[in-house]
Amino acid sequence: MKTIIVIGASGNIGKAAIKGLGKHKVITASRSGKGCDYQVDITDKTSIAALYKAVGKFDAVISAAGHCEYAPFESMTDDQWQATIQSKLVGQMNVVKVGLDHIENGGSFTLISGILNIKPMPLAIADATTSGAIDTFVKCVAFELPRGIRINAVNPTVIEEAWEMYGEMMPGYQPVPGALVGKAFERSVDSFITGQVIFVDA
Amino acid sequence: MKTIIVIGASGNIGKAAIKGLGKHKVITASRSGKGCDYQVDITDKTSIAALYKAVGKFDAVISAAGHCEYAPFESMTDDQWQATIQSKLVGQMNVVKVGLDHIENGGSFTLISGILNIKPMPLAIADATTSGAIDTFVKCVAFELPRGIRINAVNPTVIEEAWEMYGEMMPGYQPVPGALVGKAFERSVDSFITGQVIFVDA
Repeated sequence: MKTIIVIGASGNIGKAAIKGLGKHKVITASRSGKGCDYQVDITDKTSIAALYKAVGKFDAVISAAGHCEYAPFESMTDDQWQATIQSKLVGQMNVVKVGLDHIENGGSFTLISGILNIKPMPLAIADATTSGAIDTFVKCVAFELPRGIRINAVNPTVIEEAWEMYGEMMPGYQPVPGALVGKAFERSVDSFITGQVIFVDA
Repeated sequence: MKTIIVIGASGNIGKAAIKGLGKHKVITASRSGKGCDYQVDITDKTSIAALYKAVGKFDAVISAAGHCEYAPFESMTDDQWQATIQSKLVGQMNVVKVGLDHIENGGSFTLISGILNIKPMPLAIADATTSGAIDTFVKCVAFELPRGIRINAVNPTVIEEAWEMYGEMMPGYQPVPGALVGKAFERSVDSFITGQVIFVDA
């Protein structure tokens, strides 16, 4: 049994991740902290460090967090770009950077990207660009991680549990069950793979 | 004959780009402005807009600019990440964003990424991550550009002209002639392709 911290645990993807981790001890965190064990803001390295210190020993970190702004490229503001980059990209990288000081030997990080970098859609240029950055980051940084620590990304399409919210803006996308995305997180945590982007699409 | 603005014209890749543009009118710009027609700072949208206004009519923009910091992931500082992201990623996106207000119908943008997102190497995680973001950005934003405007990225390996500077940190990489990278920029400018990453590797 591993101890796994799930950041963004109250979101749809976080809940999907937890579905794949039934045999482990899961510790939950989110930006609001509501219904979770801990509150954490991934745009703040001090907040991330405080979470890790509070948990103590852990074997895996799953990030299902990262705020994205949606707008056409021509009207997306500097603030919208920065909010997306500092959360979904820099925030998730900091989850890893700070986590390296705390995670057990042989531990793993699993970050979240999203299928829009592979299947582009209107309004989603910031999501797509940062997803592409996260996929690349994971594939390249894996070679640098010490102590047998692994890193992967899960890159899912929209899940059935979120279809009501996103379906209208995603014509022609086939949602998948959250449980299938949970399998991807489980494989990242419990397999030996590293530097991989695990696509979950229909 | 097209009028083409080359940003980063005094760098090795900028010079390589110009080699492919012999039949066009080339206007040069760089951060220092030394030996170029104009000075421009791509991290400053006001500076980019001033360049475009000064040039007036133009058909293509080539960005061979973007500062990257090099360090191991574990020791790369927040400032190093931000310097790289705000220049190579956000700076180049702003070259496009601001450029859309000025470029001729049917014009083109060509951005620069770099092979380290495909062939990772020590110290280069920030370069690789932002290169992956640029490649993704180009592939996705192409569908949004108005007035027949195209966008591509050139993703080169190290060029022979830069081998003396980078060769020692790149064992096992085969440099290519700058003229071959110039061909890639020429194809982006003079063909009909859009949303493409043009890899130049040996």
